[in-house]
Amino acid sequence: MKKKLKKVNAAILIIGNEILSGRTQDKNIAFITNWLNSKCGISVKEVRIIPDVEKIIADNVLVLSKKFNYVFTTGGIGPTHDDITAQSISKAFRVKYEYHKEAFRILEKYYGKKKFNDGRKKMAKMPRGSKLILNPSSAAPGFITRNVLSLPGVPSILNSMIENCKRYLTKGLKVHSKTLCLYTVESNISKNLNLIQKKNKKFVEIGSYPFFRLGKIGVAIVTRSSSLSKLKSVNIELRKLAKLKKIQILKD
Amino acid sequence: MKKKLKKVNAAILIIGNEILSGRTQDKNIAFITNWLNSKCGISVKEVRIIPDVEKIIADNVLVLSKKFNYVFTTGGIGPTHDDITAQSISKAFRVKYEYHKEAFRILEKYYGKKKFNDGRKKMAKMPRGSKLILNPSSAAPGFITRNVLSLPGVPSILNSMIENCKRYLTKGLKVHSKTLCLYTVESNISKNLNLIQKKNKKFVEIGSYPFFRLGKIGVAIVTRSSSLSKLKSVNIELRKLAKLKKIQILKD
Repeated sequence: MKKKLKKVNAAILIIGNEILSGRTQDKNIAFITNWLNSKCGISVKEVRIIPDVEKIIADNVLVLSKKFNYVFTTGGIGPTHDDITAQSISKAFRVKYEYHKEAFRILEKYYGKKKFNDGRKKMAKMPRGSKLILNPSSAAPGFITRNVLSLPGVPSILNSMIENCKRYLTKGLKVHSKTLCLYTVESNISKNLNLIQKKNKKFVEIGSYPFFRLGKIGVAIVTRSSSLSKLKSVNIELRKLAKLKKIQILKD
Repeated sequence: MKKKLKKVNAAILIIGNEILSGRTQDKNIAFITNWLNSKCGISVKEVRIIPDVEKIIADNVLVLSKKFNYVFTTGGIGPTHDDITAQSISKAFRVKYEYHKEAFRILEKYYGKKKFNDGRKKMAKMPRGSKLILNPSSAAPGFITRNVLSLPGVPSILNSMIENCKRYLTKGLKVHSKTLCLYTVESNISKNLNLIQKKNKKFVEIGSYPFFRLGKIGVAIVTRSSSLSKLKSVNIELRKLAKLKKIQILKD
């Protein structure tokens, strides 16, 4: 018998002054969000970007871990003084911040005993009871503490580790989406869109986003639903609306 | 007499399912953050990305507006059903959501009486008491309600409006930054960096970020301070450290 899937949600907590100062353009939010939805049927419902300050990290971890099924943190798990994610999560959950035996063994093997200095050892310190998220790029593992999964900030390393999060996640209902691009302006269809959204508000979410392409303006109507048939029927309604209003549809 | 500037901070609230679903890569965070720091001496201390849901928007506006000097919202001020920023801010502050006379006049003039339909009129509705942030690209104004400044989500339009926020903002202490790129790995310098950070923790914030460039790995040491002289002296220390450890410095 097939198990019926439920809605599962998550939050992302981006930890890092470099994102907050505008120095670095974040690339992890869209990547994690897309992966979670397409591979695990998990919807991201909130993202926060916060500075490298222990109390702020701990407070946010606590709030978000209560509010959502999972929290993904990025950043702050390297060897330097500004990498304080693990100690902050320990504070949040009031558990010891200590060497994780397996992480220590992995890192010692990777660097060799002689080159395994204090900075590198720091990357084996985690909240007590954490489980490892293995890192095929640069050895230093991420970790999961209760429902909080901690990943590094460097996008290429994070990307290489994401599949190793899967075993810790409960699969949920995937949200499907369709995009219909119309050569019109939003205000020309806003009234009708509102009616279609109201009629389908239980199952389909409709978003409207202006775009500029090849010198022409248009509106991308994005519909999202966990039901493919509902998504299809709403898109038939949208195409009817375009026909009625003599609006050209952009072909993909 | 020159007025002594104080620290002024802000939060950014990105409102929009399109960012949260991973469909659209945000470009506004880095832009607003850089502009605020370089032009106004205002530091962004938190960013949140939330869905188009009235209660969630209202709750976040309230929390952030109490916590920070300013809140910048982006998105949700267009003509369609999913544009609910203005009504949500009205709910947050318990003020009426009504036509803003000047906004109505601006939009009516821009579209012409005949084409000024309900969707377009909606863009003139704001929380009572709001002041306008003029829009030189597409007329529909943003607005400031108490300490909350609401801008559109389309980056090109937001960018064209940002200078019109200045008159509402109190100028603060600008944070200067310097980046020193070293051809080494973080764990080689983490101990020394930690000491330098501890010695200077009151005035200078030191961040350490690994990079990969032209096939070589390195670490970017980013120092940030509102005092240029403190910044300079910390960077002299960092260069001494590089010399001591025989680390090559990447020339700009």
